[in-house]
Amino acid sequence: MATYAQQLKAVEGQVQSQLSDGRFQHCLRVKDYAIRLAQQNGVDPDQAALAGLVHDYAKERPTEDFLAAIDRHHLDPDLKNWSRAIWHGVVGAYMIKDELGIDDPTILDAVVNHTTGEGVTMSTLAKIVFMADYLELGRDFPGVEEGRRITDQSLDQGVFYQLKETLSFLASQGKLIYPKTFTSYNDWAKHFSS
Amino acid sequence: MATYAQQLKAVEGQVQSQLSDGRFQHCLRVKDYAIRLAQQNGVDPDQAALAGLVHDYAKERPTEDFLAAIDRHHLDPDLKNWSRAIWHGVVGAYMIKDELGIDDPTILDAVVNHTTGEGVTMSTLAKIVFMADYLELGRDFPGVEEGRRITDQSLDQGVFYQLKETLSFLASQGKLIYPKTFTSYNDWAKHFSS
Repeated sequence: MATYAQQLKAVEGQVQSQLSDGRFQHCLRVKDYAIRLAQQNGVDPDQAALAGLVHDYAKERPTEDFLAAIDRHHLDPDLKNWSRAIWHGVVGAYMIKDELGIDDPTILDAVVNHTTGEGVTMSTLAKIVFMADYLELGRDFPGVEEGRRITDQSLDQGVFYQLKETLSFLASQGKLIYPKTFTSYNDWAKHFSS
Repeated sequence: MATYAQQLKAVEGQVQSQLSDGRFQHCLRVKDYAIRLAQQNGVDPDQAALAGLVHDYAKERPTEDFLAAIDRHHLDPDLKNWSRAIWHGVVGAYMIKDELGIDDPTILDAVVNHTTGEGVTMSTLAKIVFMADYLELGRDFPGVEEGRRITDQSLDQGVFYQLKETLSFLASQGKLIYPKTFTSYNDWAKHFSS
């Protein structure tokens, strides 16, 4: 079986071919930030790099590809009521498995949950991809420096920081919120309040 | 059967006897604001006044009273994991029925939902109590004037404004959020985005 480093080299061209240059550069920066967080948190940096590189692999796929994959893999039909913003993680993981040949369940799970986060049972790798996507060095939003500082001190506190900021921002804008974003937030809120 | 105006007169002393002076004055102000919103929205002002007066009747009851009422009325046992902030509406409505003799289901429903709101099927009276509690003239928080202005123009937009502000504030503080607050918000977000 190929090592993570071998897989990384093998799939980079395929990832690039699926994405605009701007998004591919984002994926490279997420890969780099994931390596940094992996080194801080006792995770294999090559595994984190691979997960970071591929996390947005499906982000630019046409709607019909997602709808077909939801049917083919018998996923929750309610997914069809949402959009690419949700699909590219939850459904995209199946495309990454089928098309890139990545079958490490921890990587696939990290891709599934990189948009919404999960509750406190989240794997360390999933936390790393979730935070690297939020904090990579091309990001520039109010609070990103504080997010980086907190996450360097505690990956868990970083995850909760992102969930707080995201839920608060979406609500202030009156946006429809994917329920898992709320349940992820609330599980961490309970964890840190008890 | 007593009119709303008669009931209002009959229960005012009982409400006062259960509450600190500060909270009783809040109830009187909610009553006044509820009358104003009732007049704007085609609801009987006496019914709105009574609902506004009694909405916080149970707010200062001891924990054991709520726990006993949850058992006695066979309410969802998960309620026991929450606190007076939730109980005084959901459970308080039963105390108002049993102790004040108010059995108008629309008033009791408005009390049940005055903390969390509800989705778009909320009754007009429930919207009025929800908004009067938030906007009564003793309230002084950033955004209260905007909330009053929006609500004068549209009760529904006012409800959504409060839900946005509340969800956003609670998330920014990292507080555990009662799930119904989220589902109420999201139902209105869907309503206004479609």
